[in-house]
Amino acid sequence: MAELADAAGVPVATIKYYRREGLLPSGEATAPNQAAYTDAHVERLRLIRSLREVADLSIAAIHDVLDAVDDPHRGTHEVVGAAHRALDPGGGPVDDQALARAAEVIREAGWQVSETAPARATLARALSALDELGVSTDPDRLDRYIRAADAVARDEVSAALGAPARSREAVVTSVVIGTVLFEQVLAAMRRLAQEHHSGRRA
Amino acid sequence: MAELADAAGVPVATIKYYRREGLLPSGEATAPNQAAYTDAHVERLRLIRSLREVADLSIAAIHDVLDAVDDPHRGTHEVVGAAHRALDPGGGPVDDQALARAAEVIREAGWQVSETAPARATLARALSALDELGVSTDPDRLDRYIRAADAVARDEVSAALGAPARSREAVVTSVVIGTVLFEQVLAAMRRLAQEHHSGRRA
Repeated sequence: MAELADAAGVPVATIKYYRREGLLPSGEATAPNQAAYTDAHVERLRLIRSLREVADLSIAAIHDVLDAVDDPHRGTHEVVGAAHRALDPGGGPVDDQALARAAEVIREAGWQVSETAPARATLARALSALDELGVSTDPDRLDRYIRAADAVARDEVSAALGAPARSREAVVTSVVIGTVLFEQVLAAMRRLAQEHHSGRRA
Repeated sequence: MAELADAAGVPVATIKYYRREGLLPSGEATAPNQAAYTDAHVERLRLIRSLREVADLSIAAIHDVLDAVDDPHRGTHEVVGAAHRALDPGGGPVDDQALARAAEVIREAGWQVSETAPARATLARALSALDELGVSTDPDRLDRYIRAADAVARDEVSAALGAPARSREAVVTSVVIGTVLFEQVLAAMRRLAQEHHSGRRA
């Protein structure tokens, strides 16, 4: 278990906690107080760590994602969808009109996304808050965000699919990390670039 | 006060609360129980509303932003900087090595930003979390985020400066709304575009 802890960068006490919570299967017992762990354990542990430390999910939400990973009837795209839903539990209520507006924007962008994608509600909520504050969200203004989001996402998906074939655990781990941490990178860079461009004009 | 409430879209009880907290100056008394409010009051109230409801700031943080707005010795660019700092209070500690790495990325992007910009620490923290998880943050990978952030921010700043001359209150209100709500728009769109592109490849 000490070797497993080293390999995955997780303390032994944390591994024991994940074991108790039923998140990590036991290793194969090789002697009293000794068990053999495989690469599959390391990858599972890395995934749990990213769900816990990066995405800040509850143990129950982590169980949901792992159930999807372990379900042989679900394809990788579906498993990634389950992870996305866990990462964005939805927030407050959204009315149908706001959802219809978001659907219109998504159609204009040319994106095909499932009706249950949680980012639909996030987009709907933000657009409806802007409308309520009297801020224009006309197509021209939204277009710059559509173009930026599309370019970033296309590159990200290409890079992810171009990587060598990996276990589902490894794929979902990189989705979680990419979604959460690169979102922070992009948001921070936008604020820095705003300061830069506004300073140049001032 | 009822007319002021209508004009700014804020309930009378909320206006009274802001008055008690010293955020909103009183109107000019015209009769017992009656006061005249001007457009300046409406704009101030819209700014307070965006700081409170959109940015979810504390009363103390709102005071800091308003102090900057009211300080005749500070230029608009500085006032916007104060608003940005209030919107991003910084989070946990960041080590010098991570800050140096963020500074390197900012230099590569060609952005000139102040040493105290809070987004430096946000970027540093995200990059250092990625490094710790063994995720590559090489220049090629970061470049797609730099290009997207730069394009969006350049358009945003142009649009903001192209708008008709406005009071400082109105400028800061649109900075707060733009920073917080369009960040949500961009993040939601990125997730939607990821689903679209990953679905096309699956």
